[in-house]
Amino acid sequence: MPDLRSMPIAELHAYRESVEQRYTALKERRLSLNLTRGKPSDEQIALSDALLSLPGPGDYTAADGTDCRNYFGSPNGLLETRQIFAGMLGAPPEQIVIDGVSSIALMHDALTYALLTGVPGGRGPWSAEAPIAFLCPSPGYDRHFALTEGYGVKLVPVALTGHGPDVDEVERLAADPAVKGMWCVPKYSNPTGEIYAPETVKRLASMRTGAADFRLFWDNAYGVHHLTETRHELANVLEACARHGNPDRALVFGSTSKITYGGAGLGMFASSPANVAWFLDRRSRQSIGPDKLNQLRHARFLRDEAGLHRLTDAHRAILAPKFRRVQEVLGDLLGGTGVATWTDPAGGYFVSLDVMDGTAKRTVELAKQAGIQVTPAGRTFPYGKDPLDRNIRIAPSYPDVAEVGLAAEGVALSALLAATEILLQQRAVTAR
Amino acid sequence: MPDLRSMPIAELHAYRESVEQRYTALKERRLSLNLTRGKPSDEQIALSDALLSLPGPGDYTAADGTDCRNYFGSPNGLLETRQIFAGMLGAPPEQIVIDGVSSIALMHDALTYALLTGVPGGRGPWSAEAPIAFLCPSPGYDRHFALTEGYGVKLVPVALTGHGPDVDEVERLAADPAVKGMWCVPKYSNPTGEIYAPETVKRLASMRTGAADFRLFWDNAYGVHHLTETRHELANVLEACARHGNPDRALVFGSTSKITYGGAGLGMFASSPANVAWFLDRRSRQSIGPDKLNQLRHARFLRDEAGLHRLTDAHRAILAPKFRRVQEVLGDLLGGTGVATWTDPAGGYFVSLDVMDGTAKRTVELAKQAGIQVTPAGRTFPYGKDPLDRNIRIAPSYPDVAEVGLAAEGVALSALLAATEILLQQRAVTAR
Repeated sequence: MPDLRSMPIAELHAYRESVEQRYTALKERRLSLNLTRGKPSDEQIALSDALLSLPGPGDYTAADGTDCRNYFGSPNGLLETRQIFAGMLGAPPEQIVIDGVSSIALMHDALTYALLTGVPGGRGPWSAEAPIAFLCPSPGYDRHFALTEGYGVKLVPVALTGHGPDVDEVERLAADPAVKGMWCVPKYSNPTGEIYAPETVKRLASMRTGAADFRLFWDNAYGVHHLTETRHELANVLEACARHGNPDRALVFGSTSKITYGGAGLGMFASSPANVAWFLDRRSRQSIGPDKLNQLRHARFLRDEAGLHRLTDAHRAILAPKFRRVQEVLGDLLGGTGVATWTDPAGGYFVSLDVMDGTAKRTVELAKQAGIQVTPAGRTFPYGKDPLDRNIRIAPSYPDVAEVGLAAEGVALSALLAATEILLQQRAVTAR
Repeated sequence: MPDLRSMPIAELHAYRESVEQRYTALKERRLSLNLTRGKPSDEQIALSDALLSLPGPGDYTAADGTDCRNYFGSPNGLLETRQIFAGMLGAPPEQIVIDGVSSIALMHDALTYALLTGVPGGRGPWSAEAPIAFLCPSPGYDRHFALTEGYGVKLVPVALTGHGPDVDEVERLAADPAVKGMWCVPKYSNPTGEIYAPETVKRLASMRTGAADFRLFWDNAYGVHHLTETRHELANVLEACARHGNPDRALVFGSTSKITYGGAGLGMFASSPANVAWFLDRRSRQSIGPDKLNQLRHARFLRDEAGLHRLTDAHRAILAPKFRRVQEVLGDLLGGTGVATWTDPAGGYFVSLDVMDGTAKRTVELAKQAGIQVTPAGRTFPYGKDPLDRNIRIAPSYPDVAEVGLAAEGVALSALLAATEILLQQRAVTAR
């Protein structure tokens, strides 16, 4: 496909017409496809259906003798469950807290503890130092941005490079004492799929920050969510922080929401001994202890780290063909057009599509008219505003492969319609 | 038993000696009994063991078609589960939120939402109006007090009357605009066992408050936790607030921690439509949704409100003999001595024992030396300080009936030792 930006106007008109025909034909199929969220498919979810009957009759005793049906026990959660996830989180079991069904809840709680009572190494409640700010590598995860925005934290976008954030920019911005934290999805990022390079992790761990109590909110949501046979590694941020004299800088989060059940799995937090003690102290006001029975259920089901990897391999077998289909369709329709670039992630849940500047909103609107919902344009940026109106997040996990193909086709055709609209307008202006 | 306070000194010496002998004999049994916490016994917990294998193979679909294994669904939790608890909470299902395994977590979250973002009818974040205060009917629940204290809220004790707090005092104190809330355990109170009288509920609902956004934190922890055949009723606070023009005043909390499993049950919140919308709006930053599978598990197990009552009847059959044994022992040993009064609750988890002024700490210490742990003296008051050093909370649910009898005996003998110590000192001073 020749570059649309340099295509002669008559050809461009003809090309647009052919795209319109395909778009109209697709629209007439009255599809209803939802690719807005990183939601595991029914087939993936069913991989964990043994959980529906676990732990089973008479099985309620943890390895340390704790009765999981009653109050009390370790506030960190069951040791045998923490052991399974120690590798994924990059922390020894004693530096892990498993609690609740969601990592975003633990991020929320860490943030509110910091706002209301401060963190180790700080001068008191962050809310007393308002206005404070968080760095936001963008495009990123809308729930991160909404969480901080909801509590009046200023969001400062930072560009991504394909191997993590622009660290020069991060270092410059973090020199401001008002900058208290930074959102990071360091592996198979949402939505760009990139993995923070070892050098990037090292610089984030070692950089000088204006705030002595600066925190990396390290959401390792996709730590074991590989899409290829290579289990890519991420540099260990807790070790890097400790090595560089900032042992309490990183708060690591994870969950099994996309490993076992979404919303009925396990939320996890890992950090330095001081941060874990801080977190559990604050948490002791909020909770008598985590749901130990769900942790036992997961320990019985996964058994060990090898069991965790066997399960994520099974997820990969279901997910990889959907991601391949997206690549095929986008390549066929958008390749060489010069009006779109997109990621081919080695893990995670998203394809990040950059369409022609100023056409993301229009593309999403056209796709919606054809019965295909993707994440609303702008949503992947702080305050919901994509300054270039170009990023679209595609979440191909839930529909089946054929539907994913149709949806990708619809999005690609919509992107081409939106681009040719603009290009033809520009030509008209030039011709006048 | 004659009143120790007027006993001739020789008799008092002899009496003390006999108490000492019994105490020493008990101590020599090297008991290790823990009555510190309202922890259900193993026998009670086992009543819900069907949960260990529920919902069971192939069962994951809620009444409204939601797949409980995946993200999304009603943020309020499953309708069929809310229906079971509507009577207990005194609210229609649409005004109920079920989330997590703990009511204290929901109280914590409501408080932090209020501190950081304000509540309906308020002028903004409570933290911006610091210092703020909460009224604390005392003796009360230590976790309530610790929660507010942890966030810098001033704790103001209010006396209890046997049918709820001294409302004259509450009205006087609540006129202060800095008073933003009040902790209430309105039914079978922790630890006094009292039930707020209808007139008390009405006055709390209708009183004028200095703060327009004053909130009753209404922890109905023992709503269905009867110890007699009479299912005592509590006036409906949400209806009373609505009737008296303060529809958003009450935040109602409850849980199944002492109905199904402690720490693996369900936490609940009920309030006005405006407060529920407020709570869910704030919560949408924290959570993608509650653990629906645990709600389905509970719905399958309890089936309906009648099932809930059948289960709580079974708890009563186990608990009531333990509470009766405490009454027998305390009556035998302390009745008529004039140095102790105690409650005989019709529900809940505690017996509240008032020993002679200035002897609670000493009593608890002596009991501990005899291998019997009760809640540390003072713990039932704000800041852990009982101004009269007289209240002791006894939690007889966990040990068996014989052990409960021994524990109550140990506490009573300790109270008598502590009292006679003081009385004999006083006589010595008088005699000099």
